[in-house]
Amino acid sequence: MAMKRAASSAVRSLLASSSSSSSSTFTRNLHASGGKKKIVGVFYKGNEYASLNPNFVGCVEGALGIREWLESLGHEYIVTDDKEGPDSVLEKHLPDLHVLISTPFHPAYVTAERIKKAKNLELLLTAGIGSDHIDLQAAAAAGLTVAEVTGSNVVSVAEDELMRILILVRNFLPGYHQAIKGEWNVAGIAHRAYDLEGKTIGTVGAGRIGKLLLQRLKPFNCNLLYFDRLRMDPDLEKEIGAKFEEDLDAMLPKCDVIVINTPLTEQTRGLFNKDRIAKCKKGVLIVNNARGAIMDTQAIADACASGHIAGYGGDVWYPQPAPKDHPWRYMPNHAMTPHVSGTTIDGQLRYAAGVKDMLDRHFRGEDFPEQNYIVKEGQLASQYR
Amino acid sequence: MAMKRAASSAVRSLLASSSSSSSSTFTRNLHASGGKKKIVGVFYKGNEYASLNPNFVGCVEGALGIREWLESLGHEYIVTDDKEGPDSVLEKHLPDLHVLISTPFHPAYVTAERIKKAKNLELLLTAGIGSDHIDLQAAAAAGLTVAEVTGSNVVSVAEDELMRILILVRNFLPGYHQAIKGEWNVAGIAHRAYDLEGKTIGTVGAGRIGKLLLQRLKPFNCNLLYFDRLRMDPDLEKEIGAKFEEDLDAMLPKCDVIVINTPLTEQTRGLFNKDRIAKCKKGVLIVNNARGAIMDTQAIADACASGHIAGYGGDVWYPQPAPKDHPWRYMPNHAMTPHVSGTTIDGQLRYAAGVKDMLDRHFRGEDFPEQNYIVKEGQLASQYR
Repeated sequence: MAMKRAASSAVRSLLASSSSSSSSTFTRNLHASGGKKKIVGVFYKGNEYASLNPNFVGCVEGALGIREWLESLGHEYIVTDDKEGPDSVLEKHLPDLHVLISTPFHPAYVTAERIKKAKNLELLLTAGIGSDHIDLQAAAAAGLTVAEVTGSNVVSVAEDELMRILILVRNFLPGYHQAIKGEWNVAGIAHRAYDLEGKTIGTVGAGRIGKLLLQRLKPFNCNLLYFDRLRMDPDLEKEIGAKFEEDLDAMLPKCDVIVINTPLTEQTRGLFNKDRIAKCKKGVLIVNNARGAIMDTQAIADACASGHIAGYGGDVWYPQPAPKDHPWRYMPNHAMTPHVSGTTIDGQLRYAAGVKDMLDRHFRGEDFPEQNYIVKEGQLASQYR
Repeated sequence: MAMKRAASSAVRSLLASSSSSSSSTFTRNLHASGGKKKIVGVFYKGNEYASLNPNFVGCVEGALGIREWLESLGHEYIVTDDKEGPDSVLEKHLPDLHVLISTPFHPAYVTAERIKKAKNLELLLTAGIGSDHIDLQAAAAAGLTVAEVTGSNVVSVAEDELMRILILVRNFLPGYHQAIKGEWNVAGIAHRAYDLEGKTIGTVGAGRIGKLLLQRLKPFNCNLLYFDRLRMDPDLEKEIGAKFEEDLDAMLPKCDVIVINTPLTEQTRGLFNKDRIAKCKKGVLIVNNARGAIMDTQAIADACASGHIAGYGGDVWYPQPAPKDHPWRYMPNHAMTPHVSGTTIDGQLRYAAGVKDMLDRHFRGEDFPEQNYIVKEGQLASQYR
């Protein structure tokens, strides 16, 4: 299959000036000719929770609900949560797997080295959104396709962001701690609890999730700002009621709340370092359900400790699972959870259906929905270039 | 002043068939003739938090920010959090106070017995919304006026309700516990985490807070239902997108989430008892920021333990402060806090301004904004009759 990849790469070069559709038909038929495939899924373990909900398809035991279907087609389907190190189940299957499915919630980190080992690999699917656990340059260089279920959990993440904004603005968690500890001290909560109404909220990135967040924020009567590479269509901008900011560093000091809605790319890695945090208003609240590595971990913890950041909430860390000594677990005024916002039961059912659809198309040699591609047979999607 | 009350009562009877405005002018001028007043405010203590925020006016130390103004007018202003029992500061001042200000967050319970003791009492003001800490029948019988700052914290409470709905639907708290305990178990959260989108939310009561909640819920694409004594204006109903339910018991089994937005009255006390909870869908989520006594305390705790209620969130308890052994502190899947949703800094500034305005009008013998009256010189507002 390494041969095949080389071949498809050569074909692509050859056909670079012809129409991409004829090229992709040719190379995908080549891939699809393999017959029986070995598919490996890397998900989080359900353990004692697996049997509690028949729709809990996102765990190892649920296996996206596609085992019966895959096996009825004659494919082999290995599912595991064991993904790290040379003795892991994932590593064992690398040499002969054809398709690797993983999720942002329990990511199988696909390095250049692993891609080299996976000589039969054709396709990397992300059950969810965000494929930064994959070395995309290496995947592209190897002529692979990387695709995710675009849109599958945008609503889930946007809802969760609004929840975390409210939790921080309204200072919910100190009150909750009092309730469970048998205490009652309204002042300890109220002296730093605010309404969301009238505050300035800025989103860094206004793609699908950012737009859904802004739409849900609209009735709260806030000042809504967004920074993005592209300005929205004027009608949509007006409907959403958010103001475009061309310069990130000019937007930050205006914001009471900053929400991160940008993918992790080489441009956004470490974007919120010590210097950029210093540009934010003292007492700023930050919500980040995008990716942990967009932040400088220690700079965030330090700014929470000093009070420059008055609250930080999110479900993304680097690495994942977050180690027991990750500083974000212990910094003041946080609203952190493991990476869950996109893996609600509703989200799981949508991304499981999306993965099944793409596998089905892959087996038939058909194209995926265009927006799902991160790398299409060696070509990186524009935002990752 | 007991004489005065009797007189004003007699005058009211006498003038019952004449215009109410001439009656109220007459009786209020009678009240306003007293000159120097003794005003007692009962609020929660700020302690070490009092000095942390110059806008923290809702605590004893902040004293609604009206001390200087009241004293400049020659009035006496006593502020305390000590409100229970015969030796409390409140009890000590009962015999000669003219105006008593309290809040729902740290309520001065005004019983018939206390009203009897408070021979000079003219006016009971609630800094906030909800005057059920006052025996309204007794206040009315004594010819008193009870008024609150209607609208002062409706936005605060509606925002908080939406936050608690999201916390319960999305199963936030088990994830937060994992984060602070050094754990990582996505399945333990995700197996019962849902999106709000597509769920059915019913509000019991659609007054000012209920309407604001429904408006904020609109972009979440839920099925919105409301039960109330009165159906909304058809245009407003259409704009909000909620369906009217005439029969509470017919609405309950349709709801994934039930939100309580009704005042505590003799009709709503204990409304959610064992039988009514049994009518709700198994796995229902309940949010109650209205009043704790609308629920049968033990029935709620039992239904949470059995799983019939999958989550209960709110900031109201009976009594308040909630004792250390209140069962709601220890029931599974709760999102409880002390009573804080209406006492954000923004809310405090609004209700402090509203109290000052009513005091000013009282001193001048002017009417309050009509919607603020709960008891107007012995006459109960319609919803309390």
